[in-house]
Amino acid sequence: MNDLTISLDVKSQTPLYEQIYKYIKSEIQNGGLPFKERLPSTRKLAKYLQVSRTTVDLAYEQLVSEGYIEAVPYKGYFVCELEGLYRLETAQPDREECAGEEAARCDYDFSPNGVDLNSFPQNAWRKLSKEALLEENGRIFQLGDPQGEWEVRQTIAAYLHQARAVEAEPGQIVIGAGNDFLLLLLCSMFGAGQRIAMESPTYKKAYDVFRNLSNEVRIVEADESGMRVDLLEQTDADIAYVMPSHQFPLGTVMPVKRRMQLLAWAAGREGRYIIEDDYDSEFRYKGKPIPALQGFDRAERVIYIGTFSRSVAPAIRISYLVLPKALLPVYRARGRVISSTVSRVDQRIIAGFLNEGYYERHLNKMRAIYKSRHDVLLEELKRFRGICEVNGEHAGVHLLLTFLDGRSEAAAIREAAEHGVLVYGLSRYYVGEASGRESQTVLLGYANMTEDQIRAAMQRLREAWLMREDDVYQTGREDEDEKGRAESEIKDGEKAGARVKVKMEKTSG
Amino acid sequence: MNDLTISLDVKSQTPLYEQIYKYIKSEIQNGGLPFKERLPSTRKLAKYLQVSRTTVDLAYEQLVSEGYIEAVPYKGYFVCELEGLYRLETAQPDREECAGEEAARCDYDFSPNGVDLNSFPQNAWRKLSKEALLEENGRIFQLGDPQGEWEVRQTIAAYLHQARAVEAEPGQIVIGAGNDFLLLLLCSMFGAGQRIAMESPTYKKAYDVFRNLSNEVRIVEADESGMRVDLLEQTDADIAYVMPSHQFPLGTVMPVKRRMQLLAWAAGREGRYIIEDDYDSEFRYKGKPIPALQGFDRAERVIYIGTFSRSVAPAIRISYLVLPKALLPVYRARGRVISSTVSRVDQRIIAGFLNEGYYERHLNKMRAIYKSRHDVLLEELKRFRGICEVNGEHAGVHLLLTFLDGRSEAAAIREAAEHGVLVYGLSRYYVGEASGRESQTVLLGYANMTEDQIRAAMQRLREAWLMREDDVYQTGREDEDEKGRAESEIKDGEKAGARVKVKMEKTSG
Repeated sequence: MNDLTISLDVKSQTPLYEQIYKYIKSEIQNGGLPFKERLPSTRKLAKYLQVSRTTVDLAYEQLVSEGYIEAVPYKGYFVCELEGLYRLETAQPDREECAGEEAARCDYDFSPNGVDLNSFPQNAWRKLSKEALLEENGRIFQLGDPQGEWEVRQTIAAYLHQARAVEAEPGQIVIGAGNDFLLLLLCSMFGAGQRIAMESPTYKKAYDVFRNLSNEVRIVEADESGMRVDLLEQTDADIAYVMPSHQFPLGTVMPVKRRMQLLAWAAGREGRYIIEDDYDSEFRYKGKPIPALQGFDRAERVIYIGTFSRSVAPAIRISYLVLPKALLPVYRARGRVISSTVSRVDQRIIAGFLNEGYYERHLNKMRAIYKSRHDVLLEELKRFRGICEVNGEHAGVHLLLTFLDGRSEAAAIREAAEHGVLVYGLSRYYVGEASGRESQTVLLGYANMTEDQIRAAMQRLREAWLMREDDVYQTGREDEDEKGRAESEIKDGEKAGARVKVKMEKTSG
Repeated sequence: MNDLTISLDVKSQTPLYEQIYKYIKSEIQNGGLPFKERLPSTRKLAKYLQVSRTTVDLAYEQLVSEGYIEAVPYKGYFVCELEGLYRLETAQPDREECAGEEAARCDYDFSPNGVDLNSFPQNAWRKLSKEALLEENGRIFQLGDPQGEWEVRQTIAAYLHQARAVEAEPGQIVIGAGNDFLLLLLCSMFGAGQRIAMESPTYKKAYDVFRNLSNEVRIVEADESGMRVDLLEQTDADIAYVMPSHQFPLGTVMPVKRRMQLLAWAAGREGRYIIEDDYDSEFRYKGKPIPALQGFDRAERVIYIGTFSRSVAPAIRISYLVLPKALLPVYRARGRVISSTVSRVDQRIIAGFLNEGYYERHLNKMRAIYKSRHDVLLEELKRFRGICEVNGEHAGVHLLLTFLDGRSEAAAIREAAEHGVLVYGLSRYYVGEASGRESQTVLLGYANMTEDQIRAAMQRLREAWLMREDDVYQTGREDEDEKGRAESEIKDGEKAGARVKVKMEKTSG
């Protein structure tokens, strides 16, 4: 006999059948519903939950189609053996991935991949989308240039010049659906078997993309200025992948001197290139923004990658390459074969977004919001003085916390999770030989947390990390209330949730 | 001294500056404006054309930025040397590429890449787009699953099952921004150095994608049933790329017996796979549609690729893979790293398009339209009996015309172009050793031509190909009128075009 407590939220955007499906799936995954357990009949469950039978049917069908349960004629639905099941939803979240699924299991999520979506300028986007779809009597539905629309590239070039001191003509720009795709495209241009230098830790997806296409990765040590060019010189690498504006995940900003050394390395031999991933240069809270490496490049060796996924919204699949002119013949010979991966409608929208001043306003607004959150988090972190060291602040939307008391990353994550807070270990970004090494550092991303949420979450972390000896902390109503306050702005519907208990029948196994 | 005749169409959707830019660019490209020629000053040209100076400024700026002309202080604008110029717009059009640019230079365009965009259900698309953007308070702007949204994959799976007898669970489907990207993704999953069997001629972009990622392509001869499996057996290929429903460009439909042989080949050894590109299976005018190869596959060896670019609109960058279950662990290990390349908004729109019955109605409508055009073209081609042979009809949106009188493909294309009609040679789709070989076959695509246009164009082709001995044909008003009739439905604005002559000053060179 088993108690199945499904908390249905009738006001939620998530359909009821999906809520039922998700609940049962997670119960099976975490062992709450063991192998061979019989589920209640759809009629019974529908009655208990006071929903239509179709709703339960849908949930069961999805579970059957995914192999979590099976339908046995005349007997009912039974939990399948999990071994050998494809668990498609369990991929590790990474820099660009939102932690939507994981967040559901914890109260607070310091995902370094977060983006504040409450601030997304939905009205402007809708207006631009409508305009784009009204224009031109369907001409916009023809396949466009593989590089992207000329006018859109002009707009991006102008923006890059003004905001990042990037020198780009529209002919050098290639628009693509996300950084990962653009890295694939670059690999396709260079061909397999390149030797690529990277730091560790780094943006792991880039490492994976390179490796999957049979390139060799040379790990080059980084110091407080970023990748060490003296060590880079000692490798046989032809391409160096760096994030000079704000290294992910360390947050290092490469000073001008190191940038010049890097450019000199690239210019030092024919065929060397630097891939400059400028993924979150938009957000900087202290000091003047440092222009992109690309702007200093006289030898045509820097390949610049920028994205709107980070600064507008992750689901906006629009990134761009700025290719050095020397690489344009290579692009034409080997890159243009890939038709554009961004629809002309979306290209038109983002161009309007930039041209009509929405982007500038949005960036300024987000910078202010993120800066406040950054400041609140730094203020809260003062209480951890002596126990932790803070790094990587002043830019981007996450910072690093290194424990000085010998606490391991794994312990810190576990203790935080026990108090309902998700933090992320640095070691997940280690690549190459360092991969799997233990660290004492966790990442705290604050983009998708309000100031109140940050304060509440930090209170939990104090309890998790500072008070573990004296066992005074108790999960209870007080804490629930605190959570309620913090989240009330975004999750009003939650309170309407109905809690229903359903009995589960155990069959003879 | 030079005459520069720019025909400006004030009612056109193309901005005036772009019309000026395009005209001058094409004049430079075809030698009408030679190296070192001085262009009229912006003031002068603006006055002649009766447009604002800003308009001319914009046109000149674009020409400067593309390197066609240069600005010499105190002297004016001069035509640059074309050698060494990056001619970004001159990529060869291919299956997925619309011949918009080329069409502008000829009156009729039998592009095999055409899609009828006048029939695009713009209102439905707009409605669905609006709904998608209104939903969920921004949740739709979070990054989704790399494979695509579950509900959208469910919708596609249901459609494929019903329409193509493809057996797919949502977990096997990967949504991506176009077939080219999905082929890249597959390459990335398999890793470099695969041996891939292809026919020649074939879909050349697939060949290029494979080759650029260091795979070896084995060309296997095809007969009237498609790729010869007896010859395939003799190669060391592990992967076979085929289009059983309608081979591009030959139009061959693979009969069931050959399909079974191909599946047996794949099942015959561990690690063999078939890539089934089902790019235009939707359009079939005779006989029952043959179910996809994938539906017969019991050994989990078929990777199915489908697309909405062909059946809805080329700019809709939504295609999908159906992976055999055996490949899902490989996808998770090496493919999931690439974030989704299709925005959740677009995914939501296409799902609504399918679920609300728009797609079915659209397909039925298009099938009827294309069938009429197909029939008109076949009827017209009867007049070529004895001189040409027709192949690849009854499906898709193009057919093949092979000259029996010894006329080469090149001659046929040239003669057609002289009469204002664009036809496409088969040889452009040859790959491997056959690449560059001469053929006697041209492709006639009819998707983007009305029935009247087809009749008018065929009249021109009769003049081009049947009457070349007796020189009676004269380009004149009669023909202009005929063209006018045919095009009046789509190009009303043209007649408002103002013709303005501008003198060009020649400078001492």
